[in-house]
Amino acid sequence: MPVPAPNLYPPFNIVRLSHVEYRVTDLEAARAFYVDTLGLQVSGEGPRALYLRAMEERGHHCVALRQSAEPGVGALAFKLFDEPDLDHAEAFFRARGLPAEWVERPHQGRTLAARDPWGIPLEFYVHMDRLEPIHQKYGLYRGVKPLRIDHFNMFSADVDASVAFYNEMGFRTTEYTEDAETGRLWAAWMHRKGGVHDVAFTNGMGPRLHHTAFWVPTPLNIIDLLDLMSTTGWVGHIERGPGRHGISNAFFLYVRDPDGHRIELYCSDYQTVDPDHEPIKWDLKDPQRQTLWGAPAPRSWFEEGSLFDGAVPQEAALKAQPIVAP
Amino acid sequence: MPVPAPNLYPPFNIVRLSHVEYRVTDLEAARAFYVDTLGLQVSGEGPRALYLRAMEERGHHCVALRQSAEPGVGALAFKLFDEPDLDHAEAFFRARGLPAEWVERPHQGRTLAARDPWGIPLEFYVHMDRLEPIHQKYGLYRGVKPLRIDHFNMFSADVDASVAFYNEMGFRTTEYTEDAETGRLWAAWMHRKGGVHDVAFTNGMGPRLHHTAFWVPTPLNIIDLLDLMSTTGWVGHIERGPGRHGISNAFFLYVRDPDGHRIELYCSDYQTVDPDHEPIKWDLKDPQRQTLWGAPAPRSWFEEGSLFDGAVPQEAALKAQPIVAP
Amino acid sequence: MPVPAPNLYPPFNIVRLSHVEYRVTDLEAARAFYVDTLGLQVSGEGPRALYLRAMEERGHHCVALRQSAEPGVGALAFKLFDEPDLDHAEAFFRARGLPAEWVERPHQGRTLAARDPWGIPLEFYVHMDRLEPIHQKYGLYRGVKPLRIDHFNMFSADVDASVAFYNEMGFRTTEYTEDAETGRLWAAWMHRKGGVHDVAFTNGMGPRLHHTAFWVPTPLNIIDLLDLMSTTGWVGHIERGPGRHGISNAFFLYVRDPDGHRIELYCSDYQTVDPDHEPIKWDLKDPQRQTLWGAPAPRSWFEEGSLFDGAVPQEAALKAQPIVAP
Amino acid sequence: MPVPAPNLYPPFNIVRLSHVEYRVTDLEAARAFYVDTLGLQVSGEGPRALYLRAMEERGHHCVALRQSAEPGVGALAFKLFDEPDLDHAEAFFRARGLPAEWVERPHQGRTLAARDPWGIPLEFYVHMDRLEPIHQKYGLYRGVKPLRIDHFNMFSADVDASVAFYNEMGFRTTEYTEDAETGRLWAAWMHRKGGVHDVAFTNGMGPRLHHTAFWVPTPLNIIDLLDLMSTTGWVGHIERGPGRHGISNAFFLYVRDPDGHRIELYCSDYQTVDPDHEPIKWDLKDPQRQTLWGAPAPRSWFEEGSLFDGAVPQEAALKAQPIVAP
Repeated sequence: MPVPAPNLYPPFNIVRLSHVEYRVTDLEAARAFYVDTLGLQVSGEGPRALYLRAMEERGHHCVALRQSAEPGVGALAFKLFDEPDLDHAEAFFRARGLPAEWVERPHQGRTLAARDPWGIPLEFYVHMDRLEPIHQKYGLYRGVKPLRIDHFNMFSADVDASVAFYNEMGFRTTEYTEDAETGRLWAAWMHRKGGVHDVAFTNGMGPRLHHTAFWVPTPLNIIDLLDLMSTTGWVGHIERGPGRHGISNAFFLYVRDPDGHRIELYCSDYQTVDPDHEPIKWDLKDPQRQTLWGAPAPRSWFEEGSLFDGAVPQEAALKAQPIVAP
Repeated sequence: MPVPAPNLYPPFNIVRLSHVEYRVTDLEAARAFYVDTLGLQVSGEGPRALYLRAMEERGHHCVALRQSAEPGVGALAFKLFDEPDLDHAEAFFRARGLPAEWVERPHQGRTLAARDPWGIPLEFYVHMDRLEPIHQKYGLYRGVKPLRIDHFNMFSADVDASVAFYNEMGFRTTEYTEDAETGRLWAAWMHRKGGVHDVAFTNGMGPRLHHTAFWVPTPLNIIDLLDLMSTTGWVGHIERGPGRHGISNAFFLYVRDPDGHRIELYCSDYQTVDPDHEPIKWDLKDPQRQTLWGAPAPRSWFEEGSLFDGAVPQEAALKAQPIVAP
Repeated sequence: MPVPAPNLYPPFNIVRLSHVEYRVTDLEAARAFYVDTLGLQVSGEGPRALYLRAMEERGHHCVALRQSAEPGVGALAFKLFDEPDLDHAEAFFRARGLPAEWVERPHQGRTLAARDPWGIPLEFYVHMDRLEPIHQKYGLYRGVKPLRIDHFNMFSADVDASVAFYNEMGFRTTEYTEDAETGRLWAAWMHRKGGVHDVAFTNGMGPRLHHTAFWVPTPLNIIDLLDLMSTTGWVGHIERGPGRHGISNAFFLYVRDPDGHRIELYCSDYQTVDPDHEPIKWDLKDPQRQTLWGAPAPRSWFEEGSLFDGAVPQEAALKAQPIVAP
Repeated sequence: MPVPAPNLYPPFNIVRLSHVEYRVTDLEAARAFYVDTLGLQVSGEGPRALYLRAMEERGHHCVALRQSAEPGVGALAFKLFDEPDLDHAEAFFRARGLPAEWVERPHQGRTLAARDPWGIPLEFYVHMDRLEPIHQKYGLYRGVKPLRIDHFNMFSADVDASVAFYNEMGFRTTEYTEDAETGRLWAAWMHRKGGVHDVAFTNGMGPRLHHTAFWVPTPLNIIDLLDLMSTTGWVGHIERGPGRHGISNAFFLYVRDPDGHRIELYCSDYQTVDPDHEPIKWDLKDPQRQTLWGAPAPRSWFEEGSLFDGAVPQEAALKAQPIVAP
């Protein structure tokens, strides 16, 4: 089944992904990973919370870490264009019988907490506290020099259905993998902000969060992170990479935080702002789709993911086995 | 005078800058520069024309070169979101008593040719022939590995007025230089597509095109171009750089084509999609605004520019001398 | 058994490794690999031979390819300091009952062809035709931009014995792997020219040539080669990498030529000119010695190698299994 | 006058340059520059001294900073191959009526303090305390990631004579600039350790030290340093660059320490170990010899240098004006 035509006039205007709220079991261990190693900046903290911001961002945070008994994902948040969009979003979710309620969130104005049909907790806001620019404070750059949050990638038990839903919300598909045998989608990459994706869905037990990605300046910065992690006690947290994706053409690395949440460091994808941008189709059997070059992904990369609060993952209907060797 | 608040609901939706039409006096010399040296790809040609495309682009061309007796700029073209936007654009220009007429352009659908109040020839279209992706054809990459057209920068005899007009069209200011003494704008950078700018205006005899810029992968690619140009006969065409801009934070290089048209190679700016993105203000007296580091710009950089067909430049009202040394 | 103390006053002065003579079954396929893909320059050719040179070299060639029925290695050649060194070399080999005869080689002056105790064909010369520098002819740079030949790495059935012999010739050990259980050497890296190695020996069926390596400017050039090879039909020739070696700290990639000869692209090792440079010892059980980070080496990397003409490989005495996962 | 033929069997064996002793007026300011900004590591300190080491070095220090009333250079030090070389060195200097005395130096064994015919204080040693390797302690890398000391460059009032003297000591010329009108040398680059130079001489009031250079991994690291210095209060200390030298082909940047001592950050030159390496000759009138590309050197670069203790600079005999514009 082909991907749906883009919805160029969606019911509400999502500007971009904004931030992820991770439940972590040890805030200090998380700080050692996200701040001291990756190089995100602390923009706020509380006794059981840590807010992090990347180097070119102006919004208060792109990662909110909350100390919890169990690891998980509290929410994936998106910034909307203007206040009326929040009301349209509420109407959109209610009309589909989906949860939607107004919540209080630190550092944010009006915020709508909703769930997609599979239970992924989505939050929407227009106003978040703004911070002074630090992108030219070169004395602050550390680690992989993360510049901004780039995308969320989720396991979905039914990618066709996920894509249809997010397409309604205005996400436009840039690349997808089709299982030629069934004509069904194995995976899809969808954007709002003009890069290859803000969200992506891969067939698997879902919903679960596969990873959150951060954009970095160049591949050399990813190599610097590998050198750093491998010699400062984090070698076991390097999961896959470095390599060049077939899909997106991005140069990548996947690492795991102390709770196992997967983080991707990512650069060199391409601009997709054109409404008539044609999605690229990959065949599930193409060994170069995940890895144009680079070692095959380990089993953990296919199987492990983070649980969303309040969403119980279901087995995927589609059982095709992707060829893992490039 | 501060920059105007962004017009978040402009009368027609400009997606991004699209292409520039340069008049060149020697098409073969231009090919040697743009194709053989910079690394743009030929997407089409005629007896007196050459169409060029960058490596991640899908639109037919980002540069159209036309053989002419005199060098100049035929038009700066922009892609609009949807067909109705073309009609709204026509209405916008006519309502302001500005030229607006439908024209035929190769490889494009309906195209509106208009002029801004100072005579800059602007063209708008929705459909341009689309090409197969080549971003992963690494055997084709040459020169500086130009990925996409990034922005136009123009001399304006009245930057405040230029900014006001383009702001009406929906361009949002990301950075600007104010002359503290007069409170007037010396320069401003304005975007549609989510980077630092699609267009920019700098005080000077105008209108003239100061430069067209292309986005490249990393600073090392710009160094590669310098090595290449300096040892293949093009050393005299290197005008300014490399360096890091204060404004935009981009790593840059300016070169001159065989007719003197100025081209910038540019990377590492930042994402600006947020409607509440706050523009950064620079003082005209700040020596680090043009060059965070790097040699001062030569006189030619301040004085020379390309003429727009049918637009006679006027002296700038604002005469303040920018401090050139960083 | 520890590595022997360096022989600071060897019987003859080897300046550096010089070139390898590869037997290849298809000269045109080899040209497509070494010249069109890796970026070596053709410095000479005959009906059944091709001479290649790297970008900063002045000697006539660093690789000589000879069309043959079977793939193999004709010789590993080394440049000596001065003419008397050739005579001392002859005396050295004859005194040990090893083959040593004067031979004619194109583009070289007096050349001694000898064999080490295990049959590795070694050639020594002082004069090789010199070429004009091309290191600043940036228009010629292609592929991975190979700058110079860096080292040979060989399988040895008895690394302790190989090291002792090459140590006599003046090669100084910079790093080695010891099998703690037996106290025997698993591998060793030895230099003449001031980097981590000119030659190295790894325990295995030997003698066989494991790989020849070329020094490249930066890790980004290795990534460029991966992008190029994976999209121009050479993806199956990428064997291992990219990664950072524990031993040598070099950033590396291993590829296989059309005949299966293994080539390493290598950068970022370190200077070792000090006579009191202390060798670094690694434990065979240390998973980070081969790969500080990066995917484990595939089985082929441990097992496959190129045969030396006239040398029949023997099984290694030492059977310890190296841990392959980093 | 051509450069002298290399002395392949010098009277004593200099392995490489070792370290420089700088007199600095403010040790804390110097620390802020060399350690906190450039990224050298502190290997030792005293109340009025600071010893610094680069990331891949094993010798105790490459820079010794001594608090003094006036800035200056205490000595340029070189490591010799073996103890007998020290005695041969003593004999060499005494035979020429030049100062040579045994001195005590912290962290060093027997040390000979001598002076060249123009008064440059040279020190020679064989043993210096050795340190544990830190090249793989990636958590320690900062600033420009300096890997090792690379060369000294000195003003000489008579370059032909300086070259002749250092040639006797075994330094081999790799590149030189000739003033075609007089046939005299304007400048020359000479090596021991196998790169483009360990020492260099440029015509000018001398002797004075023009600069000390450190080798860094890639041009991107030099750009990182520029970004850092320009935004942490050191922008005024950036003197010249970045650029690509014609001579040596190295990518470079010159900065000035708080006392005005000039430091070069340098990478990408080439291997010169061959005894028959042919020096490259440049014409004084060639505008691309200093800068293949890049802004012309400022006047300060031609005129300013550091004074050697106990050596009074003389005016250069050769008055030719180098063309400064590339």
